[in-house]
Amino acid sequence: MNYKIAVIPGDGIGPEIVGASIKVLDKIAEKFNHTFNYTEVLAGGAAIDACDNPLPQETVDVCLASDAVLLGALGGPKWDNLPGDKRPEAGLLGLRKALGLYANLRPAILYQELKAACPLKPEIIGDGLDIMVVRELTGDVYFGEKGRDGDFAAWDIMKYTRPEVLRIAKKAFEIAMKRDKKVTNVDKANVLEVSRFWRSCVEEVAKDYPEVELNHLYVDNAAMQLVINPKQFDVIVTGNLFGDILSDEASMITGSIGMLPSASMADGKFGMFEPIHGSAPDIANQDKANPIATIVSVAMMLRYSLDLIAEADAIEAAVQKTLAQGYRTGDIFSEGMTLVGTVEMGQKIIENL
Amino acid sequence: MNYKIAVIPGDGIGPEIVGASIKVLDKIAEKFNHTFNYTEVLAGGAAIDACDNPLPQETVDVCLASDAVLLGALGGPKWDNLPGDKRPEAGLLGLRKALGLYANLRPAILYQELKAACPLKPEIIGDGLDIMVVRELTGDVYFGEKGRDGDFAAWDIMKYTRPEVLRIAKKAFEIAMKRDKKVTNVDKANVLEVSRFWRSCVEEVAKDYPEVELNHLYVDNAAMQLVINPKQFDVIVTGNLFGDILSDEASMITGSIGMLPSASMADGKFGMFEPIHGSAPDIANQDKANPIATIVSVAMMLRYSLDLIAEADAIEAAVQKTLAQGYRTGDIFSEGMTLVGTVEMGQKIIENL
Ligand SMILES: CC(C)[C@H](C(=O)O)[C@@H](O)C(=O)O
Ligand SMILES: CC(C)[C@H](C(=O)O)[C@@H](O)C(=O)O
Repeated sequence: MNYKIAVIPGDGIGPEIVGASIKVLDKIAEKFNHTFNYTEVLAGGAAIDACDNPLPQETVDVCLASDAVLLGALGGPKWDNLPGDKRPEAGLLGLRKALGLYANLRPAILYQELKAACPLKPEIIGDGLDIMVVRELTGDVYFGEKGRDGDFAAWDIMKYTRPEVLRIAKKAFEIAMKRDKKVTNVDKANVLEVSRFWRSCVEEVAKDYPEVELNHLYVDNAAMQLVINPKQFDVIVTGNLFGDILSDEASMITGSIGMLPSASMADGKFGMFEPIHGSAPDIANQDKANPIATIVSVAMMLRYSLDLIAEADAIEAAVQKTLAQGYRTGDIFSEGMTLVGTVEMGQKIIENL
Repeated sequence: MNYKIAVIPGDGIGPEIVGASIKVLDKIAEKFNHTFNYTEVLAGGAAIDACDNPLPQETVDVCLASDAVLLGALGGPKWDNLPGDKRPEAGLLGLRKALGLYANLRPAILYQELKAACPLKPEIIGDGLDIMVVRELTGDVYFGEKGRDGDFAAWDIMKYTRPEVLRIAKKAFEIAMKRDKKVTNVDKANVLEVSRFWRSCVEEVAKDYPEVELNHLYVDNAAMQLVINPKQFDVIVTGNLFGDILSDEASMITGSIGMLPSASMADGKFGMFEPIHGSAPDIANQDKANPIATIVSVAMMLRYSLDLIAEADAIEAAVQKTLAQGYRTGDIFSEGMTLVGTVEMGQKIIENL
């Protein structure tokens, strides 16, 4: 089969980790007899440098004409002092909105091989962690009206509409049906009107999924429970802002952040896939970055957007095998293991395919 | 000397932990020759039950006429289905606003005696943790306008004014001057207008404290750093919502949440003092609650509001001694220790005074 992939290497380590991932994808093409047509486009800092716009229209057009988007990472200190709407982040947010990517799926998984890197005590982790954070991605205070009252004040509106909440809740329950059938809704309904509204919409959707257990946590409590008792969670569903905070916390407690992928899905099968970690400008162009999170993001892309399940499984198995063989980039290195760079890690994974 | 203390026992375990704390205060009165005049008033669930109002005006009046306020804990499932403005939480928020308590100080300290309860690995904790979270308490999305667009949407406005940010930043820098001279500002300036404004105000205040090192973290990154490298923090300053989440996370990583006090300060010396933990309705009226967080909140009250430093030190020393003697309530119990109830824990601390 023939597939169109839009590729946004991005900033910092982006081009290196995307480069390694494309090689993995090429090997999949060869092995399974597919053709992946890549179109490279600009967003974020690279786009600002090239055309003074963090999200050129061409990028949106190419993405929309593709089956899926692969993204490295955007941003860096170089562009941090630009005004809000000219920053790399504005490109990322604009992309999410323009592509309708309302459902951000962030699995927080503990790789057994990396147990030693987990910051939590073994008795809390038990036999592993497997949480799926379902974060709403195109609403909330991220996209509300914003403004200043002269030099005196500034504000952003935190808002959700009924259709926005219903569709993300539905997504979360659908995912829970394929997992342990447990959804934890996180909000701040004891203070925020938008949270009370959000909660009532989630409860409405829950009625269609009688097999799924639903419970509610306030966001402050959720931040605590992730540290003290993460094993209680199966699927967490929450808004854009709380999801930003909690998905990062959840990925960090696994100790495997350099390993974690994410999917941002539109209605249907279209999605954008990227590692959870950032652009790490401090180690850019040094062949030091860990490409695994991007490579398993490619696996997510194959599974969710292209329906290529065997191909996705093959990549994940190759990653596991490479870890089991003891290969490690610097961020996950521990004694007795073999230190490799970005390129070599990619090659080892390809060899194991 | 003569001091006026407004006392709000509150809901759930509130009356028990406040009861134990008042006995400690009585002992201090006797030992140091002070008179504490207590006036008990209602707020939260107890006030809803008594007079259908989570914050009776009399409560505000009595508090304002006092030197300080001691609060147990408010809320519980019994009142969870009331409309937003009739809930216990509305009483708490109303109290903070009416008393002008804009600076919430939440120390996250690891008690050496309770190291075993810390969820993080020993290599992350090192020789201890001592973070002061300075949370703005009377602004942000907590107090912004809110509303619904019929059944279609709901919204809350996240807003800060210049004077609000300047005064909380000043508080944070003043506190840092007495500690390790390091302030970490937490916001989401890459997305929110209010955060960009907040950050520029914090930077303005920083100019008056050249000895203090200031750095900035995005809230998602801060949630990660607290888990992976909490020792980098001295003073964290942040808004109401982010402070709610991060202070709870910070207290949880110490493993000592049943032990942690908080102070909510107005301009000058007036403040309200309460434990960080909640009202724990599941163990109410069973003599099981840990009174230590409330007892050390009393110590904070003596130190911050009444300028009774020796008295505050005496309480903290007595608590340390009682822990060293092996007395533990259920929440902090571990093998080999002596299990005691709320009342007995209070008595042991008094004996050690
Ligand atoms: C870069 C930033 C705008 C973004 C967000 O907050 O959504 C990032 O933190 C993320 O989680 O993808
Ligand atoms: C009960 C709730 C309104 C309150 C808050 O969010 O401020 C609590 O979580 C706290 O932190 O004191």
